[in-house]
Amino acid sequence: MKFQEDGDGLTEAGGFFCAGVSADVRGKRDGRLDLALIQSNRPCSAAGVFTTNDVKAAPVNYCMDLLSRRDTARAVVVNSGNANACTGIQGERDARMMASETARQLDLQADEVLVCSTGRIGEKLPTSRITAGIKDAAEDLSEGVEGGRSFLRAILTSDTRTKSCFAEVEGDSGSYRIAGAAKGAGMIEPNMATMLAFLTTDAEVEPSLLRQLLQDAVGETFNKITVDGDMSTNDTVLLLANGFSRVRIASSDTVAVTAFREALGRVCRHLAEKVVGDGERITKVVDLKVDGAVDDTAAERVARAIANSLLVKTSWYGNDPNWGRLVDAAGYARVGLDFDKIDLFYDDEPTLLQGEPQTRNRKKWQAVVERENFAISLNLNQGEGSCQLLTTDLTEGYVDFNKSEATGNPNSASDD
Amino acid sequence: MKFQEDGDGLTEAGGFFCAGVSADVRGKRDGRLDLALIQSNRPCSAAGVFTTNDVKAAPVNYCMDLLSRRDTARAVVVNSGNANACTGIQGERDARMMASETARQLDLQADEVLVCSTGRIGEKLPTSRITAGIKDAAEDLSEGVEGGRSFLRAILTSDTRTKSCFAEVEGDSGSYRIAGAAKGAGMIEPNMATMLAFLTTDAEVEPSLLRQLLQDAVGETFNKITVDGDMSTNDTVLLLANGFSRVRIASSDTVAVTAFREALGRVCRHLAEKVVGDGERITKVVDLKVDGAVDDTAAERVARAIANSLLVKTSWYGNDPNWGRLVDAAGYARVGLDFDKIDLFYDDEPTLLQGEPQTRNRKKWQAVVERENFAISLNLNQGEGSCQLLTTDLTEGYVDFNKSEATGNPNSASDD
Repeated sequence: MKFQEDGDGLTEAGGFFCAGVSADVRGKRDGRLDLALIQSNRPCSAAGVFTTNDVKAAPVNYCMDLLSRRDTARAVVVNSGNANACTGIQGERDARMMASETARQLDLQADEVLVCSTGRIGEKLPTSRITAGIKDAAEDLSEGVEGGRSFLRAILTSDTRTKSCFAEVEGDSGSYRIAGAAKGAGMIEPNMATMLAFLTTDAEVEPSLLRQLLQDAVGETFNKITVDGDMSTNDTVLLLANGFSRVRIASSDTVAVTAFREALGRVCRHLAEKVVGDGERITKVVDLKVDGAVDDTAAERVARAIANSLLVKTSWYGNDPNWGRLVDAAGYARVGLDFDKIDLFYDDEPTLLQGEPQTRNRKKWQAVVERENFAISLNLNQGEGSCQLLTTDLTEGYVDFNKSEATGNPNSASDD
Repeated sequence: MKFQEDGDGLTEAGGFFCAGVSADVRGKRDGRLDLALIQSNRPCSAAGVFTTNDVKAAPVNYCMDLLSRRDTARAVVVNSGNANACTGIQGERDARMMASETARQLDLQADEVLVCSTGRIGEKLPTSRITAGIKDAAEDLSEGVEGGRSFLRAILTSDTRTKSCFAEVEGDSGSYRIAGAAKGAGMIEPNMATMLAFLTTDAEVEPSLLRQLLQDAVGETFNKITVDGDMSTNDTVLLLANGFSRVRIASSDTVAVTAFREALGRVCRHLAEKVVGDGERITKVVDLKVDGAVDDTAAERVARAIANSLLVKTSWYGNDPNWGRLVDAAGYARVGLDFDKIDLFYDDEPTLLQGEPQTRNRKKWQAVVERENFAISLNLNQGEGSCQLLTTDLTEGYVDFNKSEATGNPNSASDD
């Protein structure tokens, strides 16, 4: 498998056209790109994974409903700057309008178009500007660098950079690509968090297999990252497979399925890492692994308690290898852990062995925690359950960034 | 019922003696009071409520074990500056040593003495200094203002002020008092969080009744506050009833029990409010009420999701009445809420009615959120479940305060 970071985005997979234009969704007349389009030149198998928040944005409801009724699609329309969440009946109408306007411009049926929004919650979409943007985007669609890269920029909110990659798989019957694009950067505890990710592949994959492969990949990647523990109303991962490469992934062909699974996992993991690394005002990314729990669920509870503990996150920010806070957080996950069995490592440095602090090593832990990237491994020594999460520190910058939109704070978040 | 804030602390109840001295637990030779003692001049009914964290500090294990075997006590010894948590067998020994040393100085049996510690996790107690402190404290015991107030200061860690109050109940058979003292101020999400609270009463109450009344009171007060969502290894609430007033609260006397329950609830509520109000570097206290959930458990899940959401807390800090973040957090509690049924009020100002934003009122919500104290009421309109929590905003100061002890940050927390 060949893998490449960045690149042109979703147009790296054959037969996909993209665009990103300014529709002035935020009403600031700053020319920022905020309306994005993907179109395939042929019907695609389509699969999606969505936020599990009780409060789902209108476009999430729209896509979930659509994909429950049909499993193919031709296009995706996306706006940033407004989440179209908590917008009632009008919001549902606006999401449908985005689909039908896109269909009209591209000469498709409305139910061949998926819709995503990201941005501030609770405000109605500026529909006339969105409509105009869709028209512009449809005219701008291209399968080269321009369309691909404009798309990558148009989906961003508080992100500081675009996030994309692709994998290329060489098989007996030819080669195909899986390309991905994502945006973060706050409300990041997927399961899902406001994170949007789009995946295109020119392989041919039947919808039921595509759905299964996407769910597996998301479960191990996008759903295992957390910046602030806040799960969004809008999280969506969409995967379109158009078969342009003429390489078919048959569910009976284990080798082909495995290769596709690996390539998809690689693309998703890369994007998930990029989303965490671009978390709002973070300074550190921590790879947290919990092993030896009674089962995977217990391991995940412990990992999430640690990863979302304010005291743990602030200590990382302060270069403080404060294992006491970490163990405290593990304890309030209440999975029945026994402190006297715990092994804890900062990278490879033993910090606790069977609950006994390895104080001679203190300078080594300190050095680990001062790095921008490090790993923490906690073994509960109770069973076979494990969970790996990617998380971040918590900084004054995060608080400052998120404290206000109302007061015209120039650092303010757009709540995506 | 007469109620008074502050006062002399636990000596406000008759027959109780207190002391607070400097044992230099932190090893800084700064003369800070850090070793505290309560003694009753007669045996007391004793009841305790403790952290539910899997990782319990040695003194918590010691008290839980003691109170499972006997239900009376004569004294409590407390140190601040070191939690004696995650300290293994040695820690268990040190907790027992604190009890036996106290017993020796006061001419009691070791198992008449309860033990509490609060401070940094994972460091061994400086036992010789603690022993010397216990001796000093025993000599300093007094039933007046000096002993009472020294006790209040000696239990503090990152608190900025002492917290105490008492209630006096006038009954047919005479009057009695319930006095309380507490410390906060980080790791505050009781259930319990590092919060220590001590309650003394000169009423006579049989142990089983005392236990029940304490559990009820704690459930509605100390367990309904959250600053940072971090539950500590050391949280403890102890209640001693010595009967000095000769007023007996018989479980069969409904009127007397009700009066005691109310007075105890009042004292606990006041202390809980003081703990929240003294949370680390907070600027606002928010009284959050969730009603209309399918049951109380669902209401509590929603309330805790909101109260611990970083994005909600930072928006409060920024005077931003950001109901979108609040509803998002309610949604990821995943109790099956329906956004279109939600009513939301900031103080008395309707913000959402049946999911419809009351945008005309926006200036009024803004004014509410700018206050230092305000209420938020969320009605899910699904059932009869409710939960009320007291919580705070999240500030850059909290992050700065907690980011490091290792680097000699002058603002650093002592992790209590």
